[in-house]
Amino acid sequence: MNERALIARLRARVPAAPDWVLTGPGDDAAVIAPARGCVEVVTTDALVEGVHFRRDWPWRAQVQRALRTGAFDIGRKAVAVNLSDIAAMGATPRALVLSLALPPDFPVEEFDALIDGVVSLATETKTALVGGNLSRSPSGLQIHITAIGVVRPRRVMRRSGARPGDRLFVTGRLGAAAAGLAMLVASEQPGFSPADAVGLKPDGSKDILNAHLRPSARLRTGLIVANNRAASACMDLSDGLADAVHQICEASGCGADVDAKAIPVHDAATRAQALSGGEDYELLFAVPKRRIRRFLAAIRQAGEAPATDIGVCTKGTDVVLTEDGVATPMPDGFAHL
Amino acid sequence: MNERALIARLRARVPAAPDWVLTGPGDDAAVIAPARGCVEVVTTDALVEGVHFRRDWPWRAQVQRALRTGAFDIGRKAVAVNLSDIAAMGATPRALVLSLALPPDFPVEEFDALIDGVVSLATETKTALVGGNLSRSPSGLQIHITAIGVVRPRRVMRRSGARPGDRLFVTGRLGAAAAGLAMLVASEQPGFSPADAVGLKPDGSKDILNAHLRPSARLRTGLIVANNRAASACMDLSDGLADAVHQICEASGCGADVDAKAIPVHDAATRAQALSGGEDYELLFAVPKRRIRRFLAAIRQAGEAPATDIGVCTKGTDVVLTEDGVATPMPDGFAHL
Repeated sequence: MNERALIARLRARVPAAPDWVLTGPGDDAAVIAPARGCVEVVTTDALVEGVHFRRDWPWRAQVQRALRTGAFDIGRKAVAVNLSDIAAMGATPRALVLSLALPPDFPVEEFDALIDGVVSLATETKTALVGGNLSRSPSGLQIHITAIGVVRPRRVMRRSGARPGDRLFVTGRLGAAAAGLAMLVASEQPGFSPADAVGLKPDGSKDILNAHLRPSARLRTGLIVANNRAASACMDLSDGLADAVHQICEASGCGADVDAKAIPVHDAATRAQALSGGEDYELLFAVPKRRIRRFLAAIRQAGEAPATDIGVCTKGTDVVLTEDGVATPMPDGFAHL
Repeated sequence: MNERALIARLRARVPAAPDWVLTGPGDDAAVIAPARGCVEVVTTDALVEGVHFRRDWPWRAQVQRALRTGAFDIGRKAVAVNLSDIAAMGATPRALVLSLALPPDFPVEEFDALIDGVVSLATETKTALVGGNLSRSPSGLQIHITAIGVVRPRRVMRRSGARPGDRLFVTGRLGAAAAGLAMLVASEQPGFSPADAVGLKPDGSKDILNAHLRPSARLRTGLIVANNRAASACMDLSDGLADAVHQICEASGCGADVDAKAIPVHDAATRAQALSGGEDYELLFAVPKRRIRRFLAAIRQAGEAPATDIGVCTKGTDVVLTEDGVATPMPDGFAHL
C-alpha cells in the first residue's frame, strides 16, 4: 500500500468532525475554533514497538483469540495514555493528531485495526482526530499522539499545588498493569502456562492483562474533581505511584509520608508492582483537609474508581513510605529509558 | 543517561516561555492561553532515521566537518517541516511539542545538539517548545513534532479554494533538496567524489546539500500573502511540485495546466527533481487574476524568495504539463511510503 491509499483508508475510518473543526484531516494543517473561556492543555506521548508493546508475544495465537487483543488495543492504548495526561490536568479532551511510523511488513488489516482502536476511544471521549502523518519505520511500529484539551483557567490542576497537611488520594487498585506485563514476559519461558505468572492469582489473569493491554483514562474523575476545585495537585500514575509522589512533592516543594499498608494493591499484583510498576493510568491527588468531603463526593459522582487515602504531604522534602511505624525512603519510579 | 537526566538536560536548553504559556514542560500537559480573535492550526510531521535522514553517510567524517552538519540540523529540520505546514495555512507558529524516540546508543552530545537544533529554529520563529516526551527506540532515531499556529479566521489559506482561471505561482527554485539527497546517495558508491553527483554543477554542492539538510519554512511569505488575502489556495511542496498541483486541484475540484519551461528549476537540479523530488519546502499558491498585483507585492514584502507564474487552474479535472504546445499528464509526486 502506498501512502495515499493508506491515508484514504484512514480517512474512511474517521467519523465526521464536530462543527468547531473548521478543517479536518487532508489539508496542510487542521483548523480548529477555540473553546470560549478556556485555556488549552497540550500533551504528547508515544507507544513504541519493542519498548511499550510487542506484536509477537509467544502465546499470541492462543491468547489473542481469547482476549481478542491486537492492533486495535494498541491504537486505543496510544490514545488512552495521552487522555490520562489530559485527565490529570482536569481538562476535557478535544482534538488529537496522530503520527504513525509503520514497519515495512505492517499488514493492512493491522493498520485498519490500529486506526479503529484510535478512533473508538477518540469517539467515546468526544475527541476529534483532526490530523495525522504517516511515515515508514525501518523497524517497529511507533504511534506518537498529541492530544489537546480545554479547561477553564481557574480549574486547571497542576503538580505544583500541594501543601503540607494535604492528604494524598489515589484512584483505583494499583499494580495490575505491571502484573499483566510480568505475565506476558513470563510467557516467553518454555513450558509457560498463564497460571505460572509472577504475582498471578487464579482468577486475575484476564483482569491484569486487560489492565496492561486496555487501560482507561480517568477523564470523568479528573474533570469533576477539577470542576469542584477539590484538589490542590494532581498527576497521573503513568510511571508508577512512587514516581508520582516524588514528582508532586518536587513540583510543590513539600515532602510526603505514605502509609505502605494503605496503598490499594490489586489482588493479583505485588506491592512493588503497585509502587513502581508503571502504566496504571490512575490519578494521584493532593487534597486540602477542608476539601476532603467535597473531593470524595466528586469521586463518587464520577463513578469511575474509588479513591484511597494513602498518606499526607509534609514539610521539608523527605518522601517516605511508613510501615509499622518505620519510615523508609520512597523508591524511585518506573523509567521508560 | 536515564530519562530524568535527559529531561533535565532538555529543560536546561529550552529558553524561558512567553507569558501566554501558563505551564511549560514538566507537568502532565502544557497549559496555553488562546490568542484572541484567532483560530488554531495544528499539524504533525516526523523525521525517521533510515527514511528521512541518516546519521551515517559514508563521507560523513569529511563532509560533516566542512558543512558542520549533524544532529543539530536534524532537529532544526524536524521543526522546519512542521513550520512549512503552518506557513501554507497562512498562520503564525506559536507552540510545539516534541516526541523523541532515541536509539540505545544515542550519544548525549548528539542529544544536546538535536535539542539545540529544535530550540534554535523554534526561538528564531518565536515558537515555544511547551512539552515533550522521550521514549527508547529499538532501532533508529525518530523525531515526531506537533506544531500549533494561530491565524485570523478569514485569513486561513486552504488547498480547496482554487478556481478555474487562477494563476499558479511557486516560490523559490525547485529540486535542490532532491539533488542534495541524490548527491548523498551517490556518495555511497566506491570512489565517489562530490563532483560526480547526479545533476551536480561545479559550484552547487553546498547549496543543494544545504537545501536537503537545512530547509527553511516560508513563514513570512505564507503570513503576508494570507494577511493580504491574495491567494485562493496554498500548499507546501513537501512532497514535490507535481504532488502539490495534484492535491490543490483535487481539493478544489479543478484541473491545471503547468508550463514545463516556466518551472523554476534550481541550477544544480533536474526538472524531474523539481517536479517530483520532494522536500522543497516552498509554497504553491493559486492566485485569482485580479489579485496578482497584490500577491506579487506581498511576495516582495516578505522578501524570502521570488514567486514564479508556472501555469493556470482549468475547468475539468485534467492536470497536465505543457511543453512546446504538447500537454502530457502531470507525473505523481514523491511518496513517503
